[in-house]
Amino acid sequence: MAQLIDGKAIAAQVRAEVKADVERLKAERGLVPGLAVVRVGEDPASKVYVTGKKKAAGEVGFNSWEHHRDASITQDELLALVRQLNEDPAVHGILVQLPLPKHIDAELVISTVKPEKDVDGFHPISAGNLSLGRPGLRPCTPFGVMRLLKEAGCNPAGKRAVVVGRSNIVGKPMALMLLQADATVTICHRKSDLPREVGMADILVVAVGVAELVKGEWIKPGAVVIDVGMNRKADGKLVGDVEFQAASERASAITPVPGGVGPMTIAMLMRNTFIAATGGV
Amino acid sequence: MAQLIDGKAIAAQVRAEVKADVERLKAERGLVPGLAVVRVGEDPASKVYVTGKKKAAGEVGFNSWEHHRDASITQDELLALVRQLNEDPAVHGILVQLPLPKHIDAELVISTVKPEKDVDGFHPISAGNLSLGRPGLRPCTPFGVMRLLKEAGCNPAGKRAVVVGRSNIVGKPMALMLLQADATVTICHRKSDLPREVGMADILVVAVGVAELVKGEWIKPGAVVIDVGMNRKADGKLVGDVEFQAASERASAITPVPGGVGPMTIAMLMRNTFIAATGGV
Repeated sequence: MAQLIDGKAIAAQVRAEVKADVERLKAERGLVPGLAVVRVGEDPASKVYVTGKKKAAGEVGFNSWEHHRDASITQDELLALVRQLNEDPAVHGILVQLPLPKHIDAELVISTVKPEKDVDGFHPISAGNLSLGRPGLRPCTPFGVMRLLKEAGCNPAGKRAVVVGRSNIVGKPMALMLLQADATVTICHRKSDLPREVGMADILVVAVGVAELVKGEWIKPGAVVIDVGMNRKADGKLVGDVEFQAASERASAITPVPGGVGPMTIAMLMRNTFIAATGGV
Repeated sequence: MAQLIDGKAIAAQVRAEVKADVERLKAERGLVPGLAVVRVGEDPASKVYVTGKKKAAGEVGFNSWEHHRDASITQDELLALVRQLNEDPAVHGILVQLPLPKHIDAELVISTVKPEKDVDGFHPISAGNLSLGRPGLRPCTPFGVMRLLKEAGCNPAGKRAVVVGRSNIVGKPMALMLLQADATVTICHRKSDLPREVGMADILVVAVGVAELVKGEWIKPGAVVIDVGMNRKADGKLVGDVEFQAASERASAITPVPGGVGPMTIAMLMRNTFIAATGGV
């Protein structure tokens, strides 16, 4: 049976590291990192996520502020808020919780965040810095996956990594990070021959949002499997994008769902905010 | 034997298309696209490239200017020149010919070019726009490869594309463009098992700069082979990164060296400058 990659424990460790770094920063430079979270409307999931981020920020010793606005806010008003946060020296990280209402151009809002404060790593300059191998803020979820691989003792160099899914927030940055870590990287999507591609993966990262799309029997024996998915089945059970039980019988290591990648995203947001506060990218 | 993909003829066609577009632009809007080329020092290859670019610009009906500076120019002076070109309304495209002297931070110079005038597609915002699938100016060489594939009747959707080389100017943008065209994309480099990876490529793009690194016998029968390399052997002969003769016996289509990818780079620079002048990305 595969080793379980305990994202909950590793995320707690990352947060403890950030907390220790913040204490040192306060002591040595009198600087307290600040995270501003912008939430628009009453999306229940967004409310849960933002609450979690604020709580985590408080626990590591950051200042944090939630700017909640009604769904009727105009695009110009929202852009003005972002610009105000851009100029606020107490704010080192700005996170605009997605999705935004349809009358607002989310790409424009994200592009308006100062790249140095783009702790989500979604700004075009952040994406460009990653693609070009330059320093910069990285999207939290793939950044967290790299940490999980490290903790699982898995060095991507020279391995075949297969990323299923090509989203801007997980699949593409994940592929670029694995490439930078010297893996041979394949990116798959709905037009790919998934059983074949999955079967060649020493490292498999799946981020598509389809319950148990990847069958256990496809997995290469000994592979390290990272399941970014989180789907609720008809019976209410939470499952990933990979058939967990069957995959566990072939993989050497695997992330559970929940408790795998999920907790890492907030932990890496804390790390990114610290990096933004110290200019240490 | 493989069909030859005639880059010289296709590049001539692209340039004729741009020329016709420029004539229409002049007639309808009185607008003449302008390309400013910055060259520093006396690198002989740079001189040849810049001469070729100016000549092509003239032939398609652009205004073009060469700003040649001595190798002793300071970084601040060069940045000031770039900023002046950024502000010049007659200049729609700015190309800083690389390499730059060692005392100058080339990344900083490239990042100083206005993204809207970044006709080389090397600015972090251009790289980010490509990675995120947003409109923007694309690096000329992979942009040209996409046109070669189209002219060869090769639609990447659903095919396995393998890119050998992960440079910022060819390999990585190439992989992202093929991904956007719905190929399943693998990126290889010096730590990859090249014979194996090459053998699985329906579309193979090689851009590493090592003479005949890819052996003909590795090629999958029927593959489309794009050779970005251009290397001079000890006997003075120009060869690509692929063993041309042996590869031709297995591939369904292949680019020659010279006369394949090479001529496309300048042609797509012309297209990019037209796009920059019309805001039509």
